[in-house]
This record gives sequence, structure tokens and C-alpha cells, in this order.
Amino acid sequence: MSTYGTLFRVTTFGESHCASVGAIIDGCPPGLELSAQDIQIQLNRRRPGQSDLTTPRNEKDAVQLQSGIEQGVTLGTPIGLLVRNEDQRPHDYSETDLYPRPSHADYTYLEKYGIKASSGGGRSSARETIGRVAAGAIAEKYLRIAHGVEIVAFVSSVGRISLPTTAPTMGNEDEDDGGEPLSPEFRSLLASVTRPTVDAHPTRCPHPETAERMKARIIRAKDASDSIGGTVTCVVRNLPPGLGEPVFDKLEALLAHAMLSIPATKGFEIGSGFRGAEVPGSRHNDAFVQRADGSLGTRTNWSGGIQGGISNGEDVYFRVAFKSPATIARKQDTAKYDGEAGTLAARGRHDPCVVPRAVPIVEAMAAIVLMDALLIQKSRVAAMSLLPPITTLPPTMVMPQKARQEAANTTTTQ
Amino acid sequence: MSTYGTLFRVTTFGESHCASVGAIIDGCPPGLELSAQDIQIQLNRRRPGQSDLTTPRNEKDAVQLQSGIEQGVTLGTPIGLLVRNEDQRPHDYSETDLYPRPSHADYTYLEKYGIKASSGGGRSSARETIGRVAAGAIAEKYLRIAHGVEIVAFVSSVGRISLPTTAPTMGNEDEDDGGEPLSPEFRSLLASVTRPTVDAHPTRCPHPETAERMKARIIRAKDASDSIGGTVTCVVRNLPPGLGEPVFDKLEALLAHAMLSIPATKGFEIGSGFRGAEVPGSRHNDAFVQRADGSLGTRTNWSGGIQGGISNGEDVYFRVAFKSPATIARKQDTAKYDGEAGTLAARGRHDPCVVPRAVPIVEAMAAIVLMDALLIQKSRVAAMSLLPPITTLPPTMVMPQKARQEAANTTTTQ
Amino acid sequence: MSTYGTLFRVTTFGESHCASVGAIIDGCPPGLELSAQDIQIQLNRRRPGQSDLTTPRNEKDAVQLQSGIEQGVTLGTPIGLLVRNEDQRPHDYSETDLYPRPSHADYTYLEKYGIKASSGGGRSSARETIGRVAAGAIAEKYLRIAHGVEIVAFVSSVGRISLPTTAPTMGNEDEDDGGEPLSPEFRSLLASVTRPTVDAHPTRCPHPETAERMKARIIRAKDASDSIGGTVTCVVRNLPPGLGEPVFDKLEALLAHAMLSIPATKGFEIGSGFRGAEVPGSRHNDAFVQRADGSLGTRTNWSGGIQGGISNGEDVYFRVAFKSPATIARKQDTAKYDGEAGTLAARGRHDPCVVPRAVPIVEAMAAIVLMDALLIQKSRVAAMSLLPPITTLPPTMVMPQKARQEAANTTTTQ
Amino acid sequence: MSTYGTLFRVTTFGESHCASVGAIIDGCPPGLELSAQDIQIQLNRRRPGQSDLTTPRNEKDAVQLQSGIEQGVTLGTPIGLLVRNEDQRPHDYSETDLYPRPSHADYTYLEKYGIKASSGGGRSSARETIGRVAAGAIAEKYLRIAHGVEIVAFVSSVGRISLPTTAPTMGNEDEDDGGEPLSPEFRSLLASVTRPTVDAHPTRCPHPETAERMKARIIRAKDASDSIGGTVTCVVRNLPPGLGEPVFDKLEALLAHAMLSIPATKGFEIGSGFRGAEVPGSRHNDAFVQRADGSLGTRTNWSGGIQGGISNGEDVYFRVAFKSPATIARKQDTAKYDGEAGTLAARGRHDPCVVPRAVPIVEAMAAIVLMDALLIQKSRVAAMSLLPPITTLPPTMVMPQKARQEAANTTTTQ
Repeated sequence: MSTYGTLFRVTTFGESHCASVGAIIDGCPPGLELSAQDIQIQLNRRRPGQSDLTTPRNEKDAVQLQSGIEQGVTLGTPIGLLVRNEDQRPHDYSETDLYPRPSHADYTYLEKYGIKASSGGGRSSARETIGRVAAGAIAEKYLRIAHGVEIVAFVSSVGRISLPTTAPTMGNEDEDDGGEPLSPEFRSLLASVTRPTVDAHPTRCPHPETAERMKARIIRAKDASDSIGGTVTCVVRNLPPGLGEPVFDKLEALLAHAMLSIPATKGFEIGSGFRGAEVPGSRHNDAFVQRADGSLGTRTNWSGGIQGGISNGEDVYFRVAFKSPATIARKQDTAKYDGEAGTLAARGRHDPCVVPRAVPIVEAMAAIVLMDALLIQKSRVAAMSLLPPITTLPPTMVMPQKARQEAANTTTTQ
Repeated sequence: MSTYGTLFRVTTFGESHCASVGAIIDGCPPGLELSAQDIQIQLNRRRPGQSDLTTPRNEKDAVQLQSGIEQGVTLGTPIGLLVRNEDQRPHDYSETDLYPRPSHADYTYLEKYGIKASSGGGRSSARETIGRVAAGAIAEKYLRIAHGVEIVAFVSSVGRISLPTTAPTMGNEDEDDGGEPLSPEFRSLLASVTRPTVDAHPTRCPHPETAERMKARIIRAKDASDSIGGTVTCVVRNLPPGLGEPVFDKLEALLAHAMLSIPATKGFEIGSGFRGAEVPGSRHNDAFVQRADGSLGTRTNWSGGIQGGISNGEDVYFRVAFKSPATIARKQDTAKYDGEAGTLAARGRHDPCVVPRAVPIVEAMAAIVLMDALLIQKSRVAAMSLLPPITTLPPTMVMPQKARQEAANTTTTQ
Repeated sequence: MSTYGTLFRVTTFGESHCASVGAIIDGCPPGLELSAQDIQIQLNRRRPGQSDLTTPRNEKDAVQLQSGIEQGVTLGTPIGLLVRNEDQRPHDYSETDLYPRPSHADYTYLEKYGIKASSGGGRSSARETIGRVAAGAIAEKYLRIAHGVEIVAFVSSVGRISLPTTAPTMGNEDEDDGGEPLSPEFRSLLASVTRPTVDAHPTRCPHPETAERMKARIIRAKDASDSIGGTVTCVVRNLPPGLGEPVFDKLEALLAHAMLSIPATKGFEIGSGFRGAEVPGSRHNDAFVQRADGSLGTRTNWSGGIQGGISNGEDVYFRVAFKSPATIARKQDTAKYDGEAGTLAARGRHDPCVVPRAVPIVEAMAAIVLMDALLIQKSRVAAMSLLPPITTLPPTMVMPQKARQEAANTTTTQ
Repeated sequence: MSTYGTLFRVTTFGESHCASVGAIIDGCPPGLELSAQDIQIQLNRRRPGQSDLTTPRNEKDAVQLQSGIEQGVTLGTPIGLLVRNEDQRPHDYSETDLYPRPSHADYTYLEKYGIKASSGGGRSSARETIGRVAAGAIAEKYLRIAHGVEIVAFVSSVGRISLPTTAPTMGNEDEDDGGEPLSPEFRSLLASVTRPTVDAHPTRCPHPETAERMKARIIRAKDASDSIGGTVTCVVRNLPPGLGEPVFDKLEALLAHAMLSIPATKGFEIGSGFRGAEVPGSRHNDAFVQRADGSLGTRTNWSGGIQGGISNGEDVYFRVAFKSPATIARKQDTAKYDGEAGTLAARGRHDPCVVPRAVPIVEAMAAIVLMDALLIQKSRVAAMSLLPPITTLPPTMVMPQKARQEAANTTTTQ
């Protein structure tokens, strides 16, 4: 349905051509300083009309806070917010309405609901993600202030033009052990990328040379009245360990769910991902090392910061595939709702490639997932901290009392 | 947590060395003929000791039904079931206990819970999936009897040895439009593969020649005291259209969640997946065609049977990446819990590759997801069917009354 | 939190002095004709300033629909709606702010959230119920159109002035068997009461003579700068059998939850209620009788239309207790937040008695609960209807196939 | 369905005549010492055959722990447990099977599921509550160890024989202000009652003289082949303030839900309850006073420890009505499933009154509700504690930083 989360709970509403789109964010910690501007920053990164790579439709998408905040501080009660749709008028009826758009949601919405919005994407429109981006901005602010968490997403490929994510394989398939799952350059990028470097180029690819090639690829699609897909990679730094709930709500499962709920997504991989399935355990295992502060870290991080479904304190990173937009101006041979064959040329102006604008959406969904997982784990840590020390078990079964208290401090009273 | 689902709800319990593992399945339709044997068939495909490619630990894993069924028919009440653990004895303490196993859940469980099971994987053990496989067998039986749904998973790659899933790309990255996302051979396999052809080879790869190469690859890992990963592909045929709940619970999002909750998974892709992100919309769009029965189908199916998060009646297919098992006998340089560097050589006997045994787990999680989505949609269709016809809207907004009733019949009174 | 429901899901937002209050209603069946007026009718019955028995604060409470409806028909997507707060300005600081109001939520909100709204009730204000009443109006419209369900609530007591709900007891406590749980007059009223008869008097008590006494009681409280409590009784007619989910979500449990979530409530009883606990089984049991249409009904209905947590087709009725409003102008000896003793005289104008305005809120929460329970049961009935007949069980275990199909028709294809 | 709770989650399974009944308890804090005996104590208080006031059917009801505990300490993973049904054999078919038992669940289960268990109550049997009592014992142990919470329930009435709960009213209904809601004797009892004083008499009424009258009343019902109802009152002491989630999950709403989910319940009231609805605000309001430790308490506690849906640190108390058992040996004129009129005399041996055995069930459900609410609030307090002090708001909006930290300590690091 339209609600996500257990303790940090986001519910969105809105179609592409109704009065407004928005969300209710329930469970935000009380006492957080929060302004409309905190939210607007991410909405601006999501909105159309930012560059000639995106749809020229220009909506201001100004957020209007309704509740849950007084004098700039959250009350702990639901935060209602909305963004007016500037284009609320359903379009005029036309020939193209007789066609379900190929690979669009027209047909399936009609199958599911027996009725569909008259114009545009209706509920399947990317305008629905406005509520998510707003909610994500709130989650992210808490994560940053309370734990120093950094979430940065960027475009890692457009069409076949990709950052050098994976290392090259060597030898033949039957004998080779596959090399390293990810290239050193990519791992270095994950460690250092920031939002300013991402936003420095309209493609939101932080590698200038690749970004230019991506730009050319998008423009080629646009000029051909066509569209193109791509991938977004996201890295989360400074995430506390212990997040994610075995067994069904492993952290990577929650992230996969959240990412595949974004329109136009086709795939998700955590850490080494599909490439990691090709290498042997002896190479894929992340050996433990003692960090400078005495805690355990891992030498490599093919796991993507999650083991057994639980964050381990290393960077969490993952990649999301977005298909090419279904709405293209180029003529398509297809069929009408009544089965009659015909040719459709979609009207309107649309993004030739969604990945640049998808970057803040991916960040938002990551923030929402992590916030909810963090709040759940905070409860456990707090509950544990009131119990007497365990003295009857062998030491390898129990976190040392000192480490246990430090863990409590890390997540609750830093 | 350990519960999945809204109307078809599965809750599992059990560690690797406790008295039993099992599940409660709530929301199974009443009046379904169901025997222990219906469940045992899939448990047998999951259990260890099936071939020399899997761990020699041999557990019978016989299911014991506790409730919810009388005289072989479901009552609609929760079905409790369990499988005894034959090895309930925690192992003797040893040097290896001082080490968190690299890329295993030892360290993160301790971080999360402050305590961990003394032996084996505890809750992170794959034995936990027994409850899921049992629940999936129940879901699958309903789906098959009521709707003729077929769910077949198979091993699509081991290490770098892969079925020819994707078509080769052509030309250079900047100019090429990427070719077709998937190869014709693979699409043909998706249309025809059955469980007997999957089970014909111990690798559960339905292509004999590739299967033999996979087998050799697994044995090479085993002989090297190492392990290897792989991918499982799953196809679902005859799935009714209309399943999946926009916006957060899109069908592919639910599948991604479910698949990434399986131990050792690293990635998920639906339909054309990551490969689909490389091709332009004009090639990726699935044009509509009229089927023989007058309904709409699509000429291609790069969407993987889901558009806008809703099933469209075409085959649903997806691929899941599994990493190489973390527990290997080969020595690893790593650190102890207390940070001291050392060398670990894991004891015990373990699977060198999990994908053959993962096949029924993937099928089970798919069945659970689809069953829950189906039950939710059944409610909507039934609720709609009681409302008077909509006469005030333009015809392109409304499913024709006849089609609407047929849709109701398809999902509720066939 | 602020979300209620599984398939019909209501999420509310808003404090007493923020920009707006409102709700997102998710899961409304698509294809339902719905106008703002359908909702406004019930909001008008809830709003302040309706008579001299309620607060003179007069807010128009005009609903603004945001989404989920196009051209007067529901799309099946979330319905966003809001009502502007006319008084958005926090009041000026004053001496009374130093006091937590006795039996109000000031103190507990501060304990829970560490922060509270500066003015009025904040989130604990009855203005929050606007979202519920709107959601209830939507649910109710579906229930009425699709199933002919009638929901009527009314004021059954104010202070000690009560409709003759219970029959008088006879004899002493040790020997008497308690008489009938409810009086014949009250049972007759339950069978016949309608909203017009309820609204005929400003107290919303449908018995004119008692209504006048109630009115005098409320005015006496008002004149004394005091307040008074009362009870609201609600009856639901034509509810399909089979609603309510054993075991935790029995229908009466859901109703109790919903009613006790309304501000100022202190008690709930279903059917014979507390009085029913006093009489023996031989008198309390509702014997079965064959109805004119051949189906089974019960001769009496002490059960209140629910047996084993499941509706049985008889009228569902229950009673809810509301305490006297905590905010009174009369001086109260109490303590400030810092513990210093003092005397508080609340400012502002408040209802001396909430029960007349609580009537549509009780109806709304009943409608929301029943709608959700109905949608869940529709799924089960639809799922069952696809299974082959059960032939192997004794006939007393199985609903006759004919009745089974009729049951399916009753709830899905009337 | 059969799952209750958000962070502390209980799922039960089992019918009256299947292999076993039991539960999975998910979300128990790790590191809690827990033995089968901790659970068995409450199961023994629930089981049949304890005295001549209960059914002579004697089942040992020995709990078998399956998972989630190792060497007597909880792992934080799901605790699976079960109790074998000693009588697993469905009874022989007989004439009485042709009748749905009046006011029992036979008819509604058949309406809902289209099938019902052949014998006894099936899922509606009170044996289902075994899983709840076990779960409650676990919750209660944590609440007691970590917060010193005490939960004590007792029988407050049988038939018309009642402890002097409410104070007598005075004067006529139109002029009187109703006296105090509860009698001083009853308030004194709430403050002092303990389980040993409750268990001192087989009725579980802690007032010996009233207990003897209740016993006589039950025996009178039994001798007449009849049954009788009653009420159970429960008090919770030392509960931390801040529990309960506005707006739908107010603490009293959760308790009402939980209590009305117990078989045979008809009503719930919190604090002054229905009686409280009769008195004016000036008498019902609980004035604040400074406690010896400097914190705020209330002079009276008509609120029952909850204001605005949130616990305030005073004792929480509530009362639950249970109807007389529906199964009686006395002949009843009723109808068969097929509508034919006839006379039913139930076979078997049944409790003439359920309230003595309901006492541990009420305690269990209270513990489950409070545990879940506590875990949710712990998360909020921990999340707040990491935010910087709020300096921009007027002091009456914000809990003093010192009190805030103490609040955090109370619930997380005592």
C-alpha cells in the first residue's frame, strides 16, 4: 500500500494531476530542529526542469508543512506536508488515450483497479516520490545530527557507459577465480564522494569525463525521440552497527524493497552484488582487523557493510538499475485497449533518462529505511541495558560488558 | 522481525542447534486439501546431503504438523509446524570460537543482541529457511489448484559459468543501443523449464552441458577447501494480472525484499534487470498485442511480467545472486573478537556452493509473496464487484463492465 | 501511532493550532462515487458551535479533497484530505501555562515527547478526530451502497440520566439470576433508531423526554463552570456475517480498540456488556431460530451480533463511556510543572459535555473498523470459492456447498 | 489474525484437539534469564482442574521450549514454545453435532471459514490462550526485572456478587453529582493486592468473605447445570510514564483490544470507567501534587494511570467483564444447522464460571501490551537523548533538560 515503516512511518498520497501530492511522516523523534528549507533542498534536486537533460516541465514543488512542527522544532507527532500540483487540469481527450502506453502502468492499473486516472501517470507518476523525498530529508537530518551518518547517491552508469565499478575478469570461466569483485577506483570513489561533487555535473555522475560521455548518450536518446536507462549507486557512511532485523527484515532486504518500490527500477545489488557471486569465498570473505580505536573492522568490504542482514559499521553501498523511460515520442507499433493494432506516438515532454533526478529519491528511500531500522535497534539496546550482566555463559557467547555499554552509548547517549 | 506478510502471514522460529525449527502460517484459505507430504517434497529438495555437491550432514527434516489441519483439510486457522533438529548439542568449546568468522554473522549478531548462540549459525543458519520452505509449499499448493500458477526456479550460474542469460552487446559503449536484453535461448528456457528438468542434475541447472561445467566448478572449490557463489533464476507462469500494491509494495519490491531476506543473497533483478538499464526505451518497451482469447498481452516481456508494480499476466521472472559461502576450511588471516590478529581454519562440513539447495527456497519465498499479494487483490476485486457500474466517466478511464466482470471471475470464481 | 487498519487504512495528522488537520485514506475500493459533500455531512455533525450545548467556537471545518478521486469517482489510490485550522495562532503566554491541566494530556505529552505544543490540546485535541470522521464517512458510504449497512449512534446517558438500557434486577444478589440483561424498551430503540431521530434534539438522545433532562443536566454543568460525562450507544444493522479475525482481532476487540482511541473514553461494552456478566448462561445464551429466508438467526441477541469474535448477521451494538471534559473554568487546586502548589482556572471556551459531538466520531470509528474487517473477509471468501468442494469430511464440519456459494454471493457479488 | 504486537510480537497457533497449542514470541530482549519454570507458574494458574470450581478435565499443560533460549538466557531471537494437547482425538459423532451451540462460535466459524473443527471449540477454545499466558509470563519477567513492574489481576465479581468497586450514589439523578467514582475500600485493595492473596481462595477473589459468597454462587450454577459470568480487575504498579502511542494506539485502546480478544469477554473499563462518566469534571479531575522525590503525581487516580492515552506513572487499573460460559448441560430449545427446531443438551464437562482461570490470562495480555508499548517508547527516549538541547522554545513547551535526562535514565539505563 502507500505506507512504509514500523517506527518511522511514511504514508504518501497524490496523483500526477490532482490537487496536491504529499505525505504524513509519523514517528519522527521529537525535539529535532526542522525547517521547510531542510526539505526543499532535496525536493529541488528531484524536481523537473533542472537542466536540458530533464523534462522541460518546470514545477516549483514548494513544500507546505501542515503539522507536527512548532517554531521550527518537531513535536514527535505526525508531520503532514504537501506540494501543490501546478498542472491539475486533466488533458483533453485524444487519440492516444485509446492506447495503453507500452511498458507503462496504464494497462495494469486498469486491470487492478478497474479505473485509472484520465491523465499522465496518475498514481504511478514519479510525482508520487515527492512525499518520499520530503520524508527522506527528515530522516536524513536526524541521522546526520544524531549519528553523523552521510548518505550520498550518484549516477554510476547511463546506457552502457559506466564508471569502472567491477574489476575486469581474467582467464576463462572454468578456471579463473574471478579477480576482485569491485575495482579499486570505484572503492576509492565510494569512500570519498560527496553531494557537491555529484551535483557538479547535470548527470550527477561524479567522474567528469564519464559524466560528459553520459550526457552525450542522454542527448543522443533525446534527439532520437528515445530514452535510455542507467544505474544509481548509493553509499552510506558512519552507519552504526547492529541495524537490520533477522530474518525477514534483513537490512539489505529492506533496502532492496525500498529501492524496487521506486518507479522504473529493475534491479538491486548490495556490496559486491552479482559480481560477488562469481568469486570464491576465500577472496570474497572480509577478514577482520582491529581498528585504531580498538574495535573490529574489516580489511575489505565486499559485504557492503552488512553481514547476516545486520550492519557491521563499515560503509553500506548498493546499486540500483533504472530502465529507460517508457514514454517516448518515437512511434511504436502496439495495440489499443480493445485489442486493435495501431501506432502510438506519445505526446508531452518527458525525461529521456531518469537517473539524474533519481539520485535524491534513492537517498531518500535509503534514509527512510535506515531511520526505521535505527529506531527499532535503539529500543533493543535500551531494553538490554537494563538487564543485569550475564555471568553464566561462556565469554564467546556474550559481548563484553564494557563493549556492551559502549554499544549502548553509541546508539543511545552519544 | 520473523514475520512476513499481511493476509498470508508466515512467522518462523529456530536456531541451528535448538530443539526444533518451524513456523506458523496464518491466513491459509480454509478448505484446502493439505498433507505433510505436500510440504515434505520441498523440504527434501532443500535438505542437506542430497548429493556430493552439498554438505554431507544428513538430516531427515521430517515435518510435524501441529494445528490448522483436520483430516487432511485446512481449517483456515494458523498452521503450526516444526522440524526437529537432530543435532541439538552445542559443540565443544575450541580455539576457533575466539574468532568471528569472516563475512559470517557472528560479529554482527553479537553487536546487535549482545549475545549469540554458542554453536553454528544460530538464527542466521540456513536451517531457519525450513519454516519458509514449508510455508511456501502451502502457498504454492493453493496457487496451483486455484489458479494453475507454476513456479520454477533453477541455477543459472555458478561462479563465472552461466547460462546464456543476456544477449551479447555489439559495437562500442557510446554508440551501441545494446542489443536485446536477454538471449532468445534464455527466453525459451524460461518458457519451458520444469522442476523435473531442473532436478535432473544435482546442480539444478536445466542445461546438461552447462550443468556439468558447474559441477566441475563446485568440485574444484570443494577440493580447494574453498567455496563458490552463483545465481538462481525463477519464473512464474499463469500468474493472474493485478497483483502488487502501489506504491511501496510494488510486486517487484516485495519479491526483492523476500529474495534478499534469504541468507547469502547479494542481488536481485526483475525481467531484463541490470542489462535492461543499458538499452533504449524504443527497444525495451513491451508492445501490446491481442491474444487469441481477445485479451491484451505483450509481444516481448522485458518487463518481467510487472508494469507499474502490478503483474500484467505475462510470466514473472527474476534472478537472485548468492555469494560464496563464508565458512571455508581454508586458513584465513583475520582477527579475534578481542582484536588480536590470528589465523582461522573453520571446522565442520559445509556446502561449497549453496545455489542447488537455494532453488526450493527461492520458489518458497516467491510463493509466499505471490500468495499474499493475490489475497490482497482478491479483496479489492470482490469489493469492486458490488459497486454499480460507472457511467459518468470517459470510457478510457474505466475497464469495460464485461472485462471487469471477467476479471472478477478470473480471480474469484473461476 | 497515527495509522489504523490493514486493507482500509487511515492515517491522520494535525494538532489544534497547526495549519491543517487531515488524513490519508488508503485502500478505498475503486469505482465508488464520492463527493466532498458525502464527507462534509458528518464533519458538520462533529464540528463545534452546533448548539448552546457545545463550545461556541465556530469553525466551518470544510473538507478539501486532495487526491484519489477524479470526476467524483474513487481511483483506488490514497485519498488525501484536509481541513484548515482557522485558529492557527498559538495563544499568548500566560500564568496558566505554568500548570499541566489536571486529567488533561499536558503532563503526559511532555513526559512522552519531552516537548509539547504551546497551545490548546495539540495532538490530543479533539480536532484530530476530523480526519477520522472523514475517513469514516467514506467507509460508511461503501458499506451502505454495497451491503446496505446502517450505522447509527446516539447519546444513551449524560451524568446519571440514562435511557433505560438495562432491565432492573430482582431479589438479592446471592439468589437472583439477574433478570434480562437489557430492557425491552432499549432493544426496541436499537432496532428502530435513525439519524434523523437522533439529530432531532441537540443532545442527540432519541428519546425526547430523557433528552430534555440531559439538556438540563448539561446546562447545569455549564452554569457551574463544570463539565459532565455520558455514554454513546451505537448499533450496526445489516452487517454481513463472518467479519472479525480470530484470535487477536476479534470484531469486538477491534471495536473496543477503536472506541478507546477516541479522546476522553473510559469504557466499552459489547451486547449485554457488564450487565451480561451478571446473568447465568441459560438466560444469556442466544438460541438459534430459522429465519424466514431459511438462514439461521438468534431469538435474542445478548451477544451483540458477535460470537467467537465473528459477526453472526444480527445487529451489532455497543456502548462507550466518555468522561466529563477535563478543561473546566472552575478553579482547581493543583500543582505547576515544577511542583509548586497553586490554583488553576482554565481560560477559553470548551464543551461542557462531549457526547453529542462524539456521536459521529463513534459512527466513524465503527465504520472504519467494519470496513477493514469486511475487506479482509472478502479476500477469504473469494479465495475459498476457487477451491473444489470438500467431499471427505463429515457434513457437520463443512458449510453446505449451496450455502457456501450463497455466502460468497452475499459478500462478493450481491 | 493470530499475531499481536509491534516490537514484542506474539503469534499463537492451535485448536482444542490438534497435536499442540503454542506460540512464537518475537522481540524479547536478549540477555534475559528465562526458564521453563518462569512460564509454567502462570500456565499452572490457567490450567483446568485446579479446584472443584473449574472443569475436572485435568491437563498438565507442560510447556516445551523450542528455540530462542540457550543455557537459560534469551538470545533475542524468536522463542518458540508449545504445549501438547493430551486429548487429541476428535470425539465420536453424535446427535449434538447437528446443533450449533447457542452463543458459542460453532455457527460463526462455519460462516467465516466454510469449515470448522470437528470437536470442541477448535480455535475458539480457551486452550488457545495457553500461548498468550506463556508469552505474557516472558513479558512480565522483563517488566519486573528491568522496571519493577507488578501486575496483579483478581476476580472482582461473580454474577451479581461484587467487591464494593463503586461508591454508592446519592440523591436523584437530575440533581446529584454522583459521589466518588470508586469506593475507598476498592482503591485500598488496588494499592495492596498481591498474587498470594489472590490465590489464597479458589475463586481468586482477594476478599475472603466475598470470595465465599462467589464460591457459593458458582456452585449453585454448577448444580443447576448452568453457568455464571463475572468480572476481573487488574492493577499494574510501577509502570513508567510515557507509554502508549497517540492517537490510535492509546494505552487504554491497546488494553481494551487485548482484553476483548480474550474469549467470553463483554466489556472493558479503564480507571473510573462507566461510573466515571456519571460525575462532573470538578470531581473527576486528578489534581497534580508534588511527590516526595520532587516529581509530579496526582492526588486521586480516577484516570486509571493514563491521560491522553499515555501512562502517567500512577497505577494503571481496569476491569474486564466475562459472560457466563455458553456450554451448559441444561437443555436448550434451539435450532439445528439446517434450521430444524430441537433441543440441545451439551455433553462434556465445562467450567461453570471462567473468571478464576481468566485471572492469569488477563495478566498475560496486560503484560504483552505493556511490554510492546514500553519497547516502542524506549526507542523514542533513546532517539531524543541524542539531540542537542532545545533552546529556542518557551520553557513551558519543553521538559527541563535535567528531567529529560532523568526520564531517559528511568526507561533506559536505570
